[in-house]
Amino acid sequence: MSEPQSPEPALSIQGDSPTGTKDEDAADGIQHSHRMLSFSDALLSIIATVMILPVTHTEISPEQFDRSIQKLLATRIAVYLMTFLIVTVAWAAHTRLFQVVGKIDDTLALLNLACMMTITFLPFTFSLMVTFPEVPLGIFLFCMCVIAIGAVQGPLPAAYPGHRPQGPGAVLHGRRLLPVLLPFGPQEPPAHSVEPFTFDLHEPLSKERVEAFSDGVYAIVATLLILDICEDNVPDSKDVKEKFHGSLVAALSEYGPHFLAYFGSFATVGLLWFAHHSLFLHIRKTTQSMGLLNTLSLAFVGGLPLAYQQTSAFAQQPHQELESVRVSCAIIFFASIFQFAIWTTALLHEGETLQPSARFGGHEHAFMFAKLALYPCVSLLAFASTCFLSRFSAAIFHLTQITVPFAFLLLRLLVRLALAPLRALRGLSLPAHRSEDDARAPLLPSAH
Amino acid sequence: MSEPQSPEPALSIQGDSPTGTKDEDAADGIQHSHRMLSFSDALLSIIATVMILPVTHTEISPEQFDRSIQKLLATRIAVYLMTFLIVTVAWAAHTRLFQVVGKIDDTLALLNLACMMTITFLPFTFSLMVTFPEVPLGIFLFCMCVIAIGAVQGPLPAAYPGHRPQGPGAVLHGRRLLPVLLPFGPQEPPAHSVEPFTFDLHEPLSKERVEAFSDGVYAIVATLLILDICEDNVPDSKDVKEKFHGSLVAALSEYGPHFLAYFGSFATVGLLWFAHHSLFLHIRKTTQSMGLLNTLSLAFVGGLPLAYQQTSAFAQQPHQELESVRVSCAIIFFASIFQFAIWTTALLHEGETLQPSARFGGHEHAFMFAKLALYPCVSLLAFASTCFLSRFSAAIFHLTQITVPFAFLLLRLLVRLALAPLRALRGLSLPAHRSEDDARAPLLPSAH
Repeated sequence: MSEPQSPEPALSIQGDSPTGTKDEDAADGIQHSHRMLSFSDALLSIIATVMILPVTHTEISPEQFDRSIQKLLATRIAVYLMTFLIVTVAWAAHTRLFQVVGKIDDTLALLNLACMMTITFLPFTFSLMVTFPEVPLGIFLFCMCVIAIGAVQGPLPAAYPGHRPQGPGAVLHGRRLLPVLLPFGPQEPPAHSVEPFTFDLHEPLSKERVEAFSDGVYAIVATLLILDICEDNVPDSKDVKEKFHGSLVAALSEYGPHFLAYFGSFATVGLLWFAHHSLFLHIRKTTQSMGLLNTLSLAFVGGLPLAYQQTSAFAQQPHQELESVRVSCAIIFFASIFQFAIWTTALLHEGETLQPSARFGGHEHAFMFAKLALYPCVSLLAFASTCFLSRFSAAIFHLTQITVPFAFLLLRLLVRLALAPLRALRGLSLPAHRSEDDARAPLLPSAH
Repeated sequence: MSEPQSPEPALSIQGDSPTGTKDEDAADGIQHSHRMLSFSDALLSIIATVMILPVTHTEISPEQFDRSIQKLLATRIAVYLMTFLIVTVAWAAHTRLFQVVGKIDDTLALLNLACMMTITFLPFTFSLMVTFPEVPLGIFLFCMCVIAIGAVQGPLPAAYPGHRPQGPGAVLHGRRLLPVLLPFGPQEPPAHSVEPFTFDLHEPLSKERVEAFSDGVYAIVATLLILDICEDNVPDSKDVKEKFHGSLVAALSEYGPHFLAYFGSFATVGLLWFAHHSLFLHIRKTTQSMGLLNTLSLAFVGGLPLAYQQTSAFAQQPHQELESVRVSCAIIFFASIFQFAIWTTALLHEGETLQPSARFGGHEHAFMFAKLALYPCVSLLAFASTCFLSRFSAAIFHLTQITVPFAFLLLRLLVRLALAPLRALRGLSLPAHRSEDDARAPLLPSAH
């Protein structure tokens, strides 16, 4: 505790929020909602991905891979996808709600927790509904959950209109209440207030919350794999003595393919996060359609543990192995192609949605394109090679996955090298007229 | 897409970061590290809590609860606690590192992912080390992991000293390198640079990252329970037909205690998060000792799923039930008492660490005290009542857990009511001299 009070500008990178005003609000029992929202985002992203667990834990032994197992697996995948979409809709409603309610107090924080608890039950009621389609109880419970969420969230904007109406965060119009409850519902505004309704439904989602939700999904998907490894793949000391004559190395080498598959999957999830991170660095606003594409991309990212489980379950049978590599490729392809679609959608309205450096002609544009196109290309190539090469195995596939990060670094180098002469040429042809992005990049080598 | 470009101040609560400067940095391939850090926090908090899974999934049937099972359980709990501490140390080192490295580029983001992947392997190698204490392979792998993490993180500050040295985030002294690598290691600074070393080891942790890490732990603990419920407690349609004659309600009512326990646990985790959130709202700086106490509190919070599992596993045997309620009470007590300790530690240096309204005499002080004292008191009371009341059951315990949120609201009301006359008295005795916290609370009822 020698001198914690000495000022050090280099170390106040984070946490340098305006503490003065924060305290002023805290004194009234009113708080900024930032931390509550990130906690909610973390919870919701975990709940959205939770139903992938029954899918990945479906035990498939190659001998009895019959119709009933196939049907079970298909049902579970459908449940996962639907749960993901339902929870994302709940998350979108929550985002819209807290775009209207700017500041919170204790009661609101507790109500939010109650709402979260109800949302955690959605996946359970939904899977009950699907497992027992003939029993109305499942549908009843599911509807009860949805109604409860609406009942908790609905009255909030009406109950919290008075908090600091002078602040920018708390301006609230009663007319916005309905669109909050029905984010994707029918759009039938009453005749006297047409404008706020249409605006509300088309307004961009909060970019920060889209990032936080995506981060949560990527983090939980990356670690779902290690959860399984930590639980299942620590060999039993009795087994090691009996089966492997006390040799731990032999026992572990039996799990070898699992570890390889884990590293490959982590590298893929990590790089998809990395591409997402790079993409959103250049995005200014998230429109509805970009949000939807992001959800679809995340839903496929959530399917990656399934790809891992499949490839490691079938590690022994060469024929099945090819099938499972194909499934993995397809999942990776869809996850990355939807990311690419976010980028192309953003380019359609590049003036509003993108930073200048990432627009057509901006000097990050080419590299961004290459980054986002890498995974679709690699997964397509891998898919194609499973058809032509008969000896393509899961091990090769995972090794490919692990080498992709180096491809990213190589890509950066290549794009830089390819751009340097172009840049020099442009610099020569436009010596007097300094273009916008040259002015923005004083550190890059250029002809000036 | 009608008019997404129209300005709307009420909706730019989040995401209103200075986009102009952000883009300028992005143009150089240099980015603010904010999002990468929150992703790392999310990953690390999940990894820290992962080893509670083998503990909760240890199958204990009351008949064969013998020595060997007890020993296994004790080992697994020890592994969990040690893993939690080790990962927290890795997290603290990571925090310190990125307090020095302010801005990042693509290479650094990829290196960070590699570092995360290595850290995800720490729990596995550690549990290997504990399960096979006589085999040196476990220790070897564990050390390799630690060395790999050091090798990835170590050269970073040296490799990234040149990024925008004029910005506040990138000021870097080579002399800080060692303390980053050895956050809790021996402190033997070379004679020529004593000051920066001692300073670095005692400087406060970034408050935002402490919050983000804690949020991650609370979020994953709250949802670990629903993960189990979604996976295990959806009844099989065959079972329902055979055992319960097609009655889904009967099948679900068998899981009744599970659901009650889940709601109780979620309420407890949620409220502990709420208390943590309220506490950190009033904290300005996080010192080393507060960080340590926070880690201990979080380690016990991570134990809550264990409490849940125990109480629901022993739901039938009255004697065992009392035992398990006691274990739950003890875990909740320790989790909350360490939170209380953070508060008392902060009070010791209240001038530096707390906001004015929460200091002695501040008008939030009493309520803060009550909030943090609630859980230790309730858990002690519950523990005591298990000794006196023979008919105290898990169901009653969970119902108590669920009612606690209302106690919070009641508390707020009571404290407000109790403070009102005090405040009025003070207002009368000091009519001319407007005290500091009255000026800060214009919305509160006061005698002025």
